[in-house]
Formats: sequence, structure tokens, C-alpha cells
Amino acid sequence: MTIETALEALRSLPGARLTKTRAARQAHGENETHFPPAPPHAVVFPETTGDVSEILKICNTHGCPVTAFGAGTSLEGHHLPVRGGISLDTSRMNRVLRINTEDMDATVQPGVTREDLNTRLRATGLFFPVDPGANATLGGMAATRASGTTAVRYGTMRENVLALEAVLADGRIVRTGTRARKSSAGYDLTRLLVGSEGTLAILTELTVRLQGQPEAISAATCRFPSVEDAVNTVITTIQSGLPMARIELVDEMMVRGFNLHQGSDLPEAPHLFLEFHGSEAGVAEQAESFGSLARDFGAAGFRWTTHSEDRSALWRMRHQAHLATRALNPSRRVLSTDVCVPISRLAEAVKTAQTDSRALGLTCTIVGHVGDGNFHCGVLIDPGDPDETSRADTFSDKLAKLALNLGGTVTGEHGIGLGKRKYMHAEHGDAVAIMRMLKSALDPSGILNPGKLLPDAD
Amino acid sequence: MTIETALEALRSLPGARLTKTRAARQAHGENETHFPPAPPHAVVFPETTGDVSEILKICNTHGCPVTAFGAGTSLEGHHLPVRGGISLDTSRMNRVLRINTEDMDATVQPGVTREDLNTRLRATGLFFPVDPGANATLGGMAATRASGTTAVRYGTMRENVLALEAVLADGRIVRTGTRARKSSAGYDLTRLLVGSEGTLAILTELTVRLQGQPEAISAATCRFPSVEDAVNTVITTIQSGLPMARIELVDEMMVRGFNLHQGSDLPEAPHLFLEFHGSEAGVAEQAESFGSLARDFGAAGFRWTTHSEDRSALWRMRHQAHLATRALNPSRRVLSTDVCVPISRLAEAVKTAQTDSRALGLTCTIVGHVGDGNFHCGVLIDPGDPDETSRADTFSDKLAKLALNLGGTVTGEHGIGLGKRKYMHAEHGDAVAIMRMLKSALDPSGILNPGKLLPDAD
Repeated sequence: MTIETALEALRSLPGARLTKTRAARQAHGENETHFPPAPPHAVVFPETTGDVSEILKICNTHGCPVTAFGAGTSLEGHHLPVRGGISLDTSRMNRVLRINTEDMDATVQPGVTREDLNTRLRATGLFFPVDPGANATLGGMAATRASGTTAVRYGTMRENVLALEAVLADGRIVRTGTRARKSSAGYDLTRLLVGSEGTLAILTELTVRLQGQPEAISAATCRFPSVEDAVNTVITTIQSGLPMARIELVDEMMVRGFNLHQGSDLPEAPHLFLEFHGSEAGVAEQAESFGSLARDFGAAGFRWTTHSEDRSALWRMRHQAHLATRALNPSRRVLSTDVCVPISRLAEAVKTAQTDSRALGLTCTIVGHVGDGNFHCGVLIDPGDPDETSRADTFSDKLAKLALNLGGTVTGEHGIGLGKRKYMHAEHGDAVAIMRMLKSALDPSGILNPGKLLPDAD
Repeated sequence: MTIETALEALRSLPGARLTKTRAARQAHGENETHFPPAPPHAVVFPETTGDVSEILKICNTHGCPVTAFGAGTSLEGHHLPVRGGISLDTSRMNRVLRINTEDMDATVQPGVTREDLNTRLRATGLFFPVDPGANATLGGMAATRASGTTAVRYGTMRENVLALEAVLADGRIVRTGTRARKSSAGYDLTRLLVGSEGTLAILTELTVRLQGQPEAISAATCRFPSVEDAVNTVITTIQSGLPMARIELVDEMMVRGFNLHQGSDLPEAPHLFLEFHGSEAGVAEQAESFGSLARDFGAAGFRWTTHSEDRSALWRMRHQAHLATRALNPSRRVLSTDVCVPISRLAEAVKTAQTDSRALGLTCTIVGHVGDGNFHCGVLIDPGDPDETSRADTFSDKLAKLALNLGGTVTGEHGIGLGKRKYMHAEHGDAVAIMRMLKSALDPSGILNPGKLLPDAD
């Protein structure tokens, strides 16, 4: 029962396509944030569900850890094989299996990225709405319950995955859910696997909801005297029932980063960036209604457009928040937080984050999916400066605890992975015991992504 | 370890408020459909989560079955204590604990009904949108993952329950989820408990999403030459992105029932009933857009209104489908089916249901939440006529299997309960084994609503 005996057996399995090259191991042990590298012993490249099943049977027999790898864009180190074993790379499971235009759904293998899928959908009049910014795989997005700028309108992966095929730790293949839009038939295994971060099963097929491409899209921007004014505008807009497709807060430091990175000249004040989807008349009416609401809260510089170039430029800017944060000090790396709070407490949370980061002498940008109460602080850190790193950790820790005190969560969309395990007891209390029961029931040998999501046993 | 020793212990527990009167036992053993009565040994009336916890500790120790009882409106016998033991009546857990207008959520005890909650919300400008027709309790609606006419716009209980407090079989109290709109923090225990039909835990507190009362509402009706034309109109309307709040199919036999029951004079043809929520200009535009789409599919008699009396009359008629079905033959009872299929297969499913019911000599009405692909056949049966009952069973069985063949589910919103257990293997295959693992992990003694949801072990 060792990893080495598992690797021997996998080498004889054609469907594993096992490689142990240094380059492959290194590439699968890297991450985009601040976690130390953790290369696997080997990498496998299955192409079919059957391949995954055979791989898991071998790994389960020999107690070899299995960590799924999609596009490697996780911000919480989900794909890092911290206990060694194999990295199960889904890049060859990249087929769009079926697009149902009448039912507005698609069935894909887990290695299909959201941009791949949307490219395939372009001629159908449909699109897949969940947009985390990065070109992640749909398997990875489902595993982390990802969302992004459009969740306020279209929901997260929780709402957009209809059905799954998955392989259990012992190699059994199961299907959960159906293509029907709703069901009351038994335990919701689909929602149990969405967000399970590869710790309960390996996803091998996903059926996702699609949306009709809107007839018209309008985008709007305006600035506010304070973050509170911006957030109060958001609350009022939501209560009014205006169907926003995106509503993003950008704080004054983030604006400075955009100006540096993009050469723009936005006034350094809190901004909202919005998008509306609907009919030509509808999106015009919605943008104007929003503008008049916003002016009641002191908004200035209100502009809206339906021109696609202007809209694209706006969202390109927004999606480059990470690079724009680095533009404030190119020698630093970025630590990204991810709290999500009830929207009535959002202004308080954002103001506290600004105050705390300044008090700790940190440079910090804030962007937020404020329609959901979710925002990210981008804290610049020099990994070689233990004092700065420690102050950044203090900041991140205070913010996580504040979010819990305000009735929120430590992670709105990035997931627990490695970095947030220490908050599981604080967020879930005794419910962590239930999660451990579920993990033990479904993965008794503990081979699936060990060291993630659940804290180490007490 | 007997039920009697549990009852002895419960009698000494003030929070149990135990009663064994014949009237209480009978009332808790009845149902609205065709299942035989199944009275509990006794009924308890807890008022607090602590009461529920103490009750469950006793029942778990003594192996006494516990079946939760809300308003008793289940159509699949969920609340029937088929293995005896106690009925845990939540009617005294009927407090609205908190309404957050800024966050648009409310926290309630499980015995609050949806009408109670909406009455409390009237002055706030908010409403709770899930509407199964019956005035069910929110605890029961969550337990069965209920939905109804508005799911096409606002989702089901799956999307509208943010957080839960629940008591496990052994009396432990846990909280799942938070008031944040989204989270990626670990396994989705909230969604695991929603739809678990009281078999994994007893829900003691629910936090639900609210919606802003729309500024304006329009309702529309029209008739079609055929069910296919009506369904094709629905598919095109959804693809066009028109944000319908309700879209209901009524077949020609159901129209006959309405005419008999209500004294109306609608032409006996398939109809669609719709509702739009939005701004004054928006709902007018949406109704007109729908009308012009529908005419392309042969719609006639298109009418729309924003008058609240006319709208109320329309939905009162729709919600009396059960009584209107009985009006076709007042001596009969009604068996209600609940399949849900991908919308591209909906016309085929509805047509087959009409053809099969006629071929079997049954009187059958059809109403459907067609935006979701979910429809109900109301089959008239004389419980004293074994031949008719057997033909109704044959019909229901064929329809369930057809739905599975079409990629759908045997139950869109009523739940498995007693009546649909026989289809669990056909719908879920090996995933039933996972459900059994979850049940064993969370309720090892099997005291929670035994005999429901899962089929008996092979």
C-alpha cells in the first residue's frame, strides 16, 4: 500500500497516460497565488470516464492520493497535491458532448473551459453565463462552486449545474440529477458534489444551464462620494427589482491601479460598473432608472452606453484588477481575500477593510460583486518580507472574522482549498462533524484531494 | 428499546407536550390523497429548538420513529407515520424570528406558513415568492423541495433557502449556510437537507430569500390549436429572454373542469396563463411581446390586463385545479402525477399522457408549470373500484417511466414520500447507494421518517 506501487500499476494502464517528467510535475505543482509549490509524484491524463474509474480503483487499492487539475487557476491551492500522489489532469477530457438549444443546456467533459464553451455556443444564440474572470475549466468551476461578476443575475455554479456524472473513490461511476429544470426526487447529490473541491468524487461530465444571448446590453458607470453611498445605491437598486446583469464596486485605490495600468483617467473615487441585459427599450430604461436612483445617493459622472466596444473596454479593465493591483507596485505579489456578507453590512465591511489595511501599512485595492455582498481585497505583499507578509495575514484574518461576525462567509466564490481551512470551525461549528461523516462515507480511504477543505482532525 | 418506553420518557418532558388522544392521532395520520391512514402512537408539540433536541435524544435512545408534521398538505404522504412512533407537529413553532428588509431575507420557525409570512411582509414592500398553491408550512416546503407556479422566475425552495438550523437524529443542533447570498465554504449542507423529507434531520429554523414586490404586474391568457403549439410558444418565449413570472399550461379537459366549477365559459382548448412582474412600461411591453410570439404559433383570444381583480380571478381559478378536476365527477377522488421533463420533450410527454389516459378510459386533466417542464395529471378515481384504481396506477407508472426515458424526473416538486419510492432505482441507479450511505451516516438508528424517500433495502 504505497504510492510507488500505485504508480507501477498506473504505468501499465493505457488510459492513465502517466508521466513523471520533471516539467509535468512542476507545472502541476504551481499556483497563481502565494502557496508553496507542491508537485505530484506523477501526472495522469485520462480521456474518458472509464479511464478515471480505472485510475481511481488502482489509487484506492494502494492508498495513493488523487488531486484533480483543471486549468490551475484556483486562488486557494485546490489543485496542489500537498500529500503527493497523482495529479489527475482533465485537459484531455475537453469535449462538448451535447448542446440542446431548445432546452438551453449543454453537457461537457470537465476539462472544457468556459471560453471554449462560449465559443462553441456563439452561433446558437445561447451563452453560458457564469464568469469568474479566469478561463477556468467547468469541472474546476463546479468543484469550487465558482461564480463572478454575473452571479447577481444568473447565479453561481450551484444554480447552473443541472446534472453530473462522477467517479467515486472506489471507481464506481454515478449520475446525479437529470436534464429536467427541477426535481424533488431524493437527496440533492448534485449540490453535494458542486463545491466539494474534488474531495468526495471526481467529476467526469457536467450538464449546465445556458441562457439566451440578450437582444441588447447596456453598461453604465458612475462615481460616489463614499463607499457607503455606492453600497446604499446597490441596496436600493436591488430592492427596486431592477434586473442587473452585473454590478461591481471599485474603490479609490483600485481606480488608481486601473489608471496606472490602463492609462485611463477616472477620478480616484469609489465607482460602480454595471451591465443590463434585455430588450433595446428595456436596457435603456434600466440604465436611466439606475442613473436616477444613483443620483439620489450623490452619484456623479453617470454615463451609459450600448456600444459593444465601450462595454468590452469597461469589462476588460475590470477583469484586469489583478494586474492593475500589481501596477501599484510591480515588485509585489497579490494576496486576494474573498469574504461575502449580508448586503446591509457590506459598507461596514468594506470601510473596515480600507481602514484596517491602511492602519497596517498595506497597499490594498477593493473590487466587489456587490450585488451579492462579495468583495475581494488585493493586498500587495513582498513574499521576502516576513513583516509585510505577517501584516497581510493579520489583515486577512481580521477580515475573515469580521465577515463571520456580520453573518457572512469567509469565501464567497474562491473556495476553502488550503488557505481557508482554519476558518471551517468558526464558520460551521458542529456542522463540520457532518462534513467529516460525509467525507468518511464517500471516501473512506481518504485518497481524494487530501489536505483540502476539511481542517485536520482535532 | 421500544416505542412505549420512549413515550413514557416523552411524557415526563415538558417541552414535548405529548398527547395520545384519538382525535390528535387521527388528524396526524390523514392525508389529502389516496394513501391509507397511518396514525402515530402519539403527537408532540415542541415550541423551541431545545424541545426538538430533547425529544430526538429520547427517541434515538429508544429507537422510536419521528415523523415531522407541518400543515399536512403533502401529496406523497410524507407526514404519515407509517412505522408508528411520534408525529412531531411544528404548529407551535410558528414565529417569524427576523425580517431583514435591506438584505431581503427572513428567518422563521418551520411551522410558519407561506401565507403567514406574506401577510407579515405586506407592509415591507417584500414578498416570499415560492407558491405551491396549498398554504404549506415553510418547513414542509423546504423538506420536500417544493416550488409551484413562480419557480420559472424565482426558483424553488432549493434556490430560496439560504440557511438552516436543524436537529440531528441524536439531538445535536447544527447550523448550515449563512445569510450571505453565496458561499464556497465547504459541503452544501443546506441543499443536502432541503428535499431530504425529514429523513436526515428535523428543520428548526429557516432563513429564506425575499423579493421586492413588483411595481407592476400583468397577466395574460390565450388559447392554442394544440398542446404542441402552446409548448412551442413557451420554448420560444424562454429563449427570447422574456422574464415570465408564471407560465401555466391548462389542457382542454382542465378548461372543461374550470368551466363546470367556476361557471366560466372559456373555449375548451389548450390555454396558457401568464404573469409578468416589472415596471409599468416593462410588463406592458412583455405582455405585448408575448402576444406577438404566441400568434406565430396560432394563438387566439389573446388578452392581457394589469387589473388586480382580473389577475386574482385568473390565479384563483388556476389554484382550484384540484376542485375543478373533481367537478368533472364529484364522486371520485384525484390522483395527481408530477413528472418534469426537459422542455423540448414536454409536448411529447403531455400528448402521450392525454392519449394514454383516454386509451385507459380515465378522466384526466392536465395543468403544468410549463416553463420548468413540470406538469400534473389529475386522474379521477373511485377508490372502491379496483379496476379503475389499477388503470390509474398503470397510467401513472407509464408516465413516470416515460419521463425518465425523456431525461426527466418522476417528481418535479411533490417529492418521493411513499408513492415514488419504487422509482428511485430507475431514476438514480447506483446513486441510490450514495443516498443510503448519507442516511446511515446521519441517522444510524433509522428513526427519522422511516419508510420514506429511500426504497426498502434489496
